[in-house]
Amino acid sequence: MPTAHTVVEHLEEEVAAPVIHALRPMLGSGGQLGSRAGVPCDSWRLAVEAYNMRGWKTVPAECECYVGHYMLGEQYRRDSRVVVDEAVAYAESLKLAGNGKDVWVFDIDETSLSNLPYYATHGFGSRPYNATRFNEYVMEGSAPALPETKRLFKKLVSLGIKPVFLTGRTEDQRAITVKNLRRQGYSGWEKLLLKPLGVKVAAVAYKSGERQKLQDAGYVIVGNIGDQWSDILGAPEGARTFKLPDPMYYIG
Amino acid sequence: MPTAHTVVEHLEEEVAAPVIHALRPMLGSGGQLGSRAGVPCDSWRLAVEAYNMRGWKTVPAECECYVGHYMLGEQYRRDSRVVVDEAVAYAESLKLAGNGKDVWVFDIDETSLSNLPYYATHGFGSRPYNATRFNEYVMEGSAPALPETKRLFKKLVSLGIKPVFLTGRTEDQRAITVKNLRRQGYSGWEKLLLKPLGVKVAAVAYKSGERQKLQDAGYVIVGNIGDQWSDILGAPEGARTFKLPDPMYYIG
Repeated sequence: MPTAHTVVEHLEEEVAAPVIHALRPMLGSGGQLGSRAGVPCDSWRLAVEAYNMRGWKTVPAECECYVGHYMLGEQYRRDSRVVVDEAVAYAESLKLAGNGKDVWVFDIDETSLSNLPYYATHGFGSRPYNATRFNEYVMEGSAPALPETKRLFKKLVSLGIKPVFLTGRTEDQRAITVKNLRRQGYSGWEKLLLKPLGVKVAAVAYKSGERQKLQDAGYVIVGNIGDQWSDILGAPEGARTFKLPDPMYYIG
Repeated sequence: MPTAHTVVEHLEEEVAAPVIHALRPMLGSGGQLGSRAGVPCDSWRLAVEAYNMRGWKTVPAECECYVGHYMLGEQYRRDSRVVVDEAVAYAESLKLAGNGKDVWVFDIDETSLSNLPYYATHGFGSRPYNATRFNEYVMEGSAPALPETKRLFKKLVSLGIKPVFLTGRTEDQRAITVKNLRRQGYSGWEKLLLKPLGVKVAAVAYKSGERQKLQDAGYVIVGNIGDQWSDILGAPEGARTFKLPDPMYYIG
């Protein structure tokens, strides 16, 4: 699992190891923390993933450790693997047109690239979002690939389904995003769609608008994967959608 | 928590106590079982709740015990409570028209009434669905209320939001369904919409069609709660939707 190690290496090389990292071997999935906390963090996380919890600004303070252990432990990886296994099985079952117009939409942050090295030193989503700091991190171009998503990406390419990146990152981040994606082993995408600077529209509206343009250009969106519900809601969603776990932040 | 006890009483009174029930005090949420099993049952359950897993016929055999412990332990109740807490907060935040046209759609099975006494003796969803046996159980009219849903129901009534039941149960089950709901403390609903016999249409199409009729009749669907994604997908979904946990079966 080379890329799981990459996450850890980043933590070790580039940032001071957070306390939670030292605890990691002891606590695994964080399930016990979830049960003991005043807020039932395991139920909160489930509610986030099932889209019952919307418009939240930060992880509940009581759940910082729970979310940290979840993200750094085995469960996040295992949850992601089951989603990607299902996506791969779906992709393999498709009868493709074979005309090069079949595409699969990928979100970038927490879908194709992981910002866990950043969030691990910024409270795992329990502190208010700091755009300046986060963008500084993005501009390093050092975010590791999510290994399960990369596996899906490569599988789709091998099946003749073309990946299209569709991200809330802005056009001024194009060069570093391309560099980061390439460094992490992504190649062969059909398009990288970034948000024009100054566009002020909610993620659902922006992303469904871009998917509509893809359809209008003759593409068939056979699949769509993201970590936010705003990645996968809003017609045209794509023939099948997949929600990767993300208990660290909410984009509406 | 009187109605949680009701579930247990039903198990004790009406059916032979399953082995899993005897184990209940030892294993709690089933988290450890989830981690140890060949299939990662915790990740499978998350994938079900986040609508990544679709069209499945039965709970994976390896996950029967996991799902049983989940359903009979504290976590199912806790997960449901967090969903309902969010629904209550949402309902309380609404500015209502106050003209008696604000409604909230409730599914019945595994939403308003629990069939856990049935599933506890039939493999917790790990065995193929047996319509004959299940309908025999329904005709007993003994299904306990889900306590969290009943709390939401009563709250909505007190706020002036009228509950509408919309269920895949069929018209021939109307009398027993009314009796069961009343026995379990539900009262004051606006409508109970059951499926006409012989209607062969997928749940999403059927239920969204019925919601459209409600809207056409001047109702405003301010909320919608169910345990299946087919309860809450398909326009008009309702202004806000809530997904209760159900790892026992899938209705497409």
